[in-house]
This record gives sequence, structure tokens and C-alpha cells, in this order.
Amino acid sequence: MSEVEESSAQESVQEHLQEIVALLEKQRLVEDLVHKQEMPRHELVESLVHKQHVAELQKKLDSLHSADVAYILEALPRDQRLLVWDLVKADREGEVLLELSEPVREALIAQMEPAELLAAAETLDTDELADLAPDLPEDVMDDVFKALPVEEREQLRAAMSYPEDSVGALMDFDLVTIRDDVTLEVVLRYLRRLEELPDHTDQIFVVDRGEVLKGVLPLHTLLVNDPERRVADLMDKDMLALTATDKAAEAAQAFERYDLVTAPVVDDKGRLAGRVSVDAVVDYIREAAESERLNLGGLRQEEDIFSSVWASAKNRWTWLAINLVTAFIASRVISVFEGTIEKLVALAALMPIVAGIGGNSGNQTITMIVRSLALGQMTPTNARTLVLKEIAISLLNGLVWGGIIGGFAMLLYHSPSLGIVMTAAMTLNLLVAALFGVFIPMLMYKLGRDPAVGSSVMITAITDSGGFFIFLGLASLFLL
Amino acid sequence: MSEVEESSAQESVQEHLQEIVALLEKQRLVEDLVHKQEMPRHELVESLVHKQHVAELQKKLDSLHSADVAYILEALPRDQRLLVWDLVKADREGEVLLELSEPVREALIAQMEPAELLAAAETLDTDELADLAPDLPEDVMDDVFKALPVEEREQLRAAMSYPEDSVGALMDFDLVTIRDDVTLEVVLRYLRRLEELPDHTDQIFVVDRGEVLKGVLPLHTLLVNDPERRVADLMDKDMLALTATDKAAEAAQAFERYDLVTAPVVDDKGRLAGRVSVDAVVDYIREAAESERLNLGGLRQEEDIFSSVWASAKNRWTWLAINLVTAFIASRVISVFEGTIEKLVALAALMPIVAGIGGNSGNQTITMIVRSLALGQMTPTNARTLVLKEIAISLLNGLVWGGIIGGFAMLLYHSPSLGIVMTAAMTLNLLVAALFGVFIPMLMYKLGRDPAVGSSVMITAITDSGGFFIFLGLASLFLL
Repeated sequence: MSEVEESSAQESVQEHLQEIVALLEKQRLVEDLVHKQEMPRHELVESLVHKQHVAELQKKLDSLHSADVAYILEALPRDQRLLVWDLVKADREGEVLLELSEPVREALIAQMEPAELLAAAETLDTDELADLAPDLPEDVMDDVFKALPVEEREQLRAAMSYPEDSVGALMDFDLVTIRDDVTLEVVLRYLRRLEELPDHTDQIFVVDRGEVLKGVLPLHTLLVNDPERRVADLMDKDMLALTATDKAAEAAQAFERYDLVTAPVVDDKGRLAGRVSVDAVVDYIREAAESERLNLGGLRQEEDIFSSVWASAKNRWTWLAINLVTAFIASRVISVFEGTIEKLVALAALMPIVAGIGGNSGNQTITMIVRSLALGQMTPTNARTLVLKEIAISLLNGLVWGGIIGGFAMLLYHSPSLGIVMTAAMTLNLLVAALFGVFIPMLMYKLGRDPAVGSSVMITAITDSGGFFIFLGLASLFLL
Repeated sequence: MSEVEESSAQESVQEHLQEIVALLEKQRLVEDLVHKQEMPRHELVESLVHKQHVAELQKKLDSLHSADVAYILEALPRDQRLLVWDLVKADREGEVLLELSEPVREALIAQMEPAELLAAAETLDTDELADLAPDLPEDVMDDVFKALPVEEREQLRAAMSYPEDSVGALMDFDLVTIRDDVTLEVVLRYLRRLEELPDHTDQIFVVDRGEVLKGVLPLHTLLVNDPERRVADLMDKDMLALTATDKAAEAAQAFERYDLVTAPVVDDKGRLAGRVSVDAVVDYIREAAESERLNLGGLRQEEDIFSSVWASAKNRWTWLAINLVTAFIASRVISVFEGTIEKLVALAALMPIVAGIGGNSGNQTITMIVRSLALGQMTPTNARTLVLKEIAISLLNGLVWGGIIGGFAMLLYHSPSLGIVMTAAMTLNLLVAALFGVFIPMLMYKLGRDPAVGSSVMITAITDSGGFFIFLGLASLFLL
């Protein structure tokens, strides 16, 4: 991508972006000049300058990696984005589309002719096609299917059939296979006849006549051993093999744990069906982290930073609506105690503290439990230990922090009993936070749902309404 | 790791865990029996049974990958953890320590003798030692330094000098280098003389006599080309090269974008200093996502699930204390308006809605901006566009959701003017959320701080206090 001299990868792609923005600005200045000063659109001058800029842009784009082109497209406003997209060579459009985030990809696909889309799709491997398929119009996909050889058609159908979070969705079909009864010399000669090896090939799969996976031969083994030795004696028979229905998250953990570059995927009869390579795993880990981050931030999906106000607003409405409902419920809880608040208005000022700290503490517990569940460390014994520990922590925190804030309340309002009610309410609400903080994610896990999604909203709803109820309830009982 | 038949990696490590827990339980039952029934501790019987269990455990542990041993240690309560740790072979202790999370690693190191630690450290490569160094006692590190050959001592010193989020911290020194004036045949013979290649070697580094990096020779190129050809004609001169002071996050993005397995690291004179391999990058991405998740959840760092109540509570106090302060400030804002609330107690029930939705919306904006900053898409032009868009969205959301909740308020309290104040307050607070949601992360970025840390707490503090102030202030002006 970059020469040795320009050594930082990120700086370098941002430099590319700046260069392209500069070229686009020059282009716009010329057009503005023609437009504003109402010059006669002197065909010759304009087209020459225009052509020169376009040629420069074209050259720059052609020199960039597809991933960098995608990066630049994402960072450009819509009109400039379309201008640049038109200059991307047809045989790279497929690759660039793959690298784009979903909203930007959708926007560009919506602008493309069916014939252009078909041409772009035809440059892709079947596993890449499967990734792109959900965003392509149905008639284009029909044509893509028709244009494929029978074997690849089956591969595509298989790849499209796996859910997004399964190993099948990460799998590709770039397999180099050998038999175990040959020598390394034969393997070396066989490889030399191939023009190139599939990306990331770090091992060759050893199969029998029935395509059943017998072992793997790492390239390292091939390179450091005597060429006279036989594959059967050197291959690794004890390798990790995935199946297409395994969860992607589990495969990712295996790659991380065992430092893998590729892993074979076998079907239920042990036949080699495909492979997963580390670049797909890295993308998966990034995307999973990204989508969790967006979810925690209250966004439904990635936003194209240049999407319309309307599209962006809709992306945020799900969570706003949910929060509005929970805030409304909390509001109704408070309104039950309006009589109490009227008599002791200090309660109105103090109640958000009880609710807020409860929510904070509940989210801490949830984060702990979700992590333990994700790591599979939640054995029945451990669960019991954890519940007891969370309860103990909540009581400790309730007495410490509840005591501090109760002390403040006592001093501010000259009322020891108000201070005691405050401390008691904090402690009880932290206890509620601890119990539901363990209970909610474990219930969601039992029900087969992702405990990382929604647990936080639920615990906040409970500690808000619960906090108001406990504090105002205790105050009604003991302070009036 | 696992045979082809047991194909799921995650299930398999959990099965290992269950097996070991079962063995430990058996062991405990025997001890309980001896203890409870106050049997005379019949030396022979006990030691036989004990020995048998220990042998079984030992055998099981020896068959596991170091990463799996670490996983199992993390999932075991403290007493059982120490029992299993004693059975880990001395020559693997270093590797297992590397795979453990920090709190568990620290706990085990605290239990180990200096001599044992030194022995464990001596089994590690210098880049691994640098990772472990912060957790080792100083005198052990001194001995480690003394035991190293001069070259490695320098490497270790260099590796330890780089900050945690730099390429230097990800780098290792497992380099295979060649000159460019030889044929592939010579390279193949040279590799065959090595007993094994460093893990993840997918390319060999081509250097001149001054160790300056000239290019890389991918193993794939080596394998598919005629052995008579020369390295100089086949090597890739246009490779990406990192420097040790590059940010780790940028290197990770380069690995993701260009699908790399390894990348060379050069010094300021272009000399080869080390390499980064994808397993270090995968670990980095995981850990960065993990630490962000913990931070968002309000935890300072990872928790050992079996740490003491006291240690866990301390891990949560930073965020609780910060939130207590912000909640206290919000409470003081409300108390300014106690007179208003006394006259119109409905305000107390409605005010948390204004504050809550503001916080929610502000966090959505922050999530968007932090993401754009992280991707480096925040050019000055884009920043202007984004601010305007966020303002437009906040006004739209204020009118839509503020209108809905204002309508409810009007119906519930039979007061059109209360409904209008509610809608106006929501809209204004969402505007505040949008402005500060853009401003806070951009300011933190300008100041060189990580905008992902702390932005969320700050925006929530502002929308809480601001929401109470705006709503109660408007109510004081227009409703009394």
C-alpha cells in the first residue's frame, strides 16, 4: 500500500483522502467560476480543465487499495461521493462495495443499473457474493445465479443459507487439497503448477478420496522438511475443525485462543466443506464490537454521516421510543406520591440521586455477568457465588455511598430522619440493582437471546421506577 | 486442540472445564468424608485416592493448550484455582500467565516464589517478557535481565519502553531475513536448515547488509515460482511497513483493511526492527473492545469473578463517585426550584422524562461523533455538515417526541400550557444534547484525549442538570 518511507498506514489513507478532497475542490471552484460570473460556458476551456482533473482523480483512485477507496467514499458528501464512484473501474466495483458500510453500500447500489451491478457481482467469489446478496435487487441476484457454473451456484446457495452469526457466513471456498500418500516433493511440484495460492493459505488440507478431512499440512512443515518425506508422516491430524453451523463468536474465540490463520470447515460426515481465514474473523470481531457499541449508544445501525436528517432520525427512534416509555412509567410512579412531595418538596430534589446511582450500579453488575456468560464461565456453582458477591457489594456500596449522600441530605435539610430514609432507600435500590443485574442477563441467556442487547435499558427502567418507589414510599411511611 | 469429531471449539473447552470441575469435586468429597466423619486420616487410603485424582488432573491439564488452561483457571474459585495451578508444568507457567486476565495473573504471581517466577519468565520470548514485566516483582525482573544474552536484553529494554497502545507493544522479534541477490532455491535450502519457522510467518523479510528493509518475499511467491528465479525479481517492494511509535489502533486498522498476516516494523533509518503478526492484532482488538465495554459499563478494569467483595467494590467506586457528584449537582439544580414544585407538584413527576430523553439523545450523538473521529472521517467540512445535521435531528426529535409527551402531560394534568412547556423544554434539552454531543468529543480529541472515555458521563451530567433547569425554569416563568 505505502512505500517504506511513508510508514504510518492510517496517516497515509487520510493523506489520500485529503488529496482527493483537494482535487474535488479544484473541480468545484472551476464550476463555480463558470456559474457565478455567468461566463459563457466556453466549451473548450471547461472541458479541458475538467478532463485534466478527472484524469488526475482517476489516476489517484486506481493507485489505491479497494478498502481505501471505500474509506474515502464514506468520508465524502453525497454529490462528491457519486462523482468519485463513477470513476471507480468497473472491475473493482464489486470489491469496493464489499468494503463499504451498509448504509453507504445501499445508497450506491440504488444508483446503479442492473447491468452494472451484474458486472460488479461477477468479479466476486461465491463467499463474497453471499455477503453482498442481501443488498442486491432480486432480479440481479437471479441473473448472478444463472451466470454461475453449477458447483459455484451450489456454494452460493449454501453460503446464503447460513445465519449471519454462524461459521457458514465467515467461510470461503478457496481450498487447496492433497492426498496423504504423496511426498512433499510432489506437493511442492503441484503448488508450483498453480499460478497463485489463495490468500492466507498457511496450511494445505489433506483429504481422502471421499473428500473426508484427514489432516492438515502447514506450509511451514512443507518448507522445513526433507522433500522425500511423505505427507502422511508429517501432517497434523489433531487440528481444530469447525462446522458451518458453529457460532461465529465461538470460532472467533478459537482463532484468538489458538492463534490461527485458517481453519477447515467440515460437514456432518467429516467432509471438507470450506475454510475460515483470519481476515474474516478480524472483520467479524470488529463488526460485532461496532454493533455492540452502536447499540449501547442507542443507535439501531451504522449511520452514513451524510445520510438525510430523516434517515438519521429514524435510526435513533427505536431507542428513544423505548426510553420514552420507561421514563413515562417512572413518571407515573412519582405521580402516585405527589401528595408526599407536596408536603416535603426536598424529596423531589433528592429522588434522582437514588434512581441514578441505582442505574449506574445495576449496569456495572450487568457488564460483569454478560462478560462471564460470553466467556462461558457461568457454571451453576459460579452463578451462586456471583449472586452472593453482588449482593454483598450492593450492601457495602449502599452503606458507604448511601451513608455519604444521606449525611449530605441530613445537613442540607437539617433532618436526621430524612438522611436515614435516603441511606435506606439507596441501599435497597442497590440491592434491587444487584438482583436484577444478575437475573436479567441470565434469564435472557436461558431464553436463547443475546444478554448484551437490551439488558441495560431494562435495568435502568427498573432502578428508575424502583428507586422512586422505594424512596418516596419510605418517605411516606416514616417522614410524614 | 480437538479431534475432527468434536468440532466446536468453544463447547470443547467448556467440556474440559466440566471434566476438571468433576475431578476437583471428587477430590473434595473424599476430603470431606475424611473430615466430617472424623475418620482417622488413614494415610494409605487417602494418599492413594488423592494421588490417583492428582494424576488424572495432571494428565488432563498436560493435554490442554495453554490458552485453555488459562481459561479454566479463570473459571475456578480461588482454592481450586491454586490446586490446579500447582499442577501446571513449570515450563508452561510463563505461557499460561501470559494468557490470563490481569487480576487473575496478579493473584497467581503473588503466590509464586521468586525462583519459580524466574524459571517461568525464562521460557518466554523477549516480546512476551515485555508483556509480563509490569506484573513481575522488580527483583525478579532484575534477575531476568541478567540471565538474558546481550542482544535479547536490548530487545527487552526496547519492547518495554513503548507505550501500551503503540506498535512497539505489539511487536515481536521472530524475524527470518534473506538478501535479495540469491535464488529461491537458496532460500528454500536455507529454510530447510531451520528446524521450524516462527509462528505466522507468511513472508520473509529481504534486507541489505545494513539491515535496511528492501522488500518482502511472501511464502506463496516462494512456493509457486521457479526455484531458479532470483529474490530481487520476485520480492514485493511496495509493502506496508510500520514503525514502533505508530499507534496500535492504526496498525490494527491497516491489518483489517489490507487483510495482513504479518507486517514488518522499521526504525527511522528504514532498518528492520521487528514484526507485528495478526495474533497480536486480534488480541489487541479484543482487549480494546473489552476495555471500552467495561468502561461504558462503569467498571475500571476486568474483574476476577472470584475476587473479594472488597476488591470488586473498589473496581466500581471511581464511576459511582463521579456519578454521585453529577447526581448531586442535578439535585442542587432542582432544589433551586423547590418553591415552583411546591406550587405545581406535577413538575416533579414530569422532570425526569425531560432529563432522561435528553441524555439518551446526547449519547446517540456522541456515539456517532466518536465513531467518525476514530475512523478519521472528521474533516473540517464534514464537521460543519455534522453539527448542522445533529441540530436538525434534535429539533425534529424535540417536536415529535416532545410533542407526544407534551400531549400526554396536557391530558393527564388538564393543562395545555403545561403541555407546551413540556414540549419546549424537551426540544431545548435535545438541542443542548446535540450541541454538547458534538462539542465534548471533538474538544477531547483536540486535547489529545480518548473521546470514547468519559464523554458519555459528561453528556449525561449536562442533560440531567440542563434538563431540570430548562424545564423547571420555563415552568417558573410561564406557569406560575
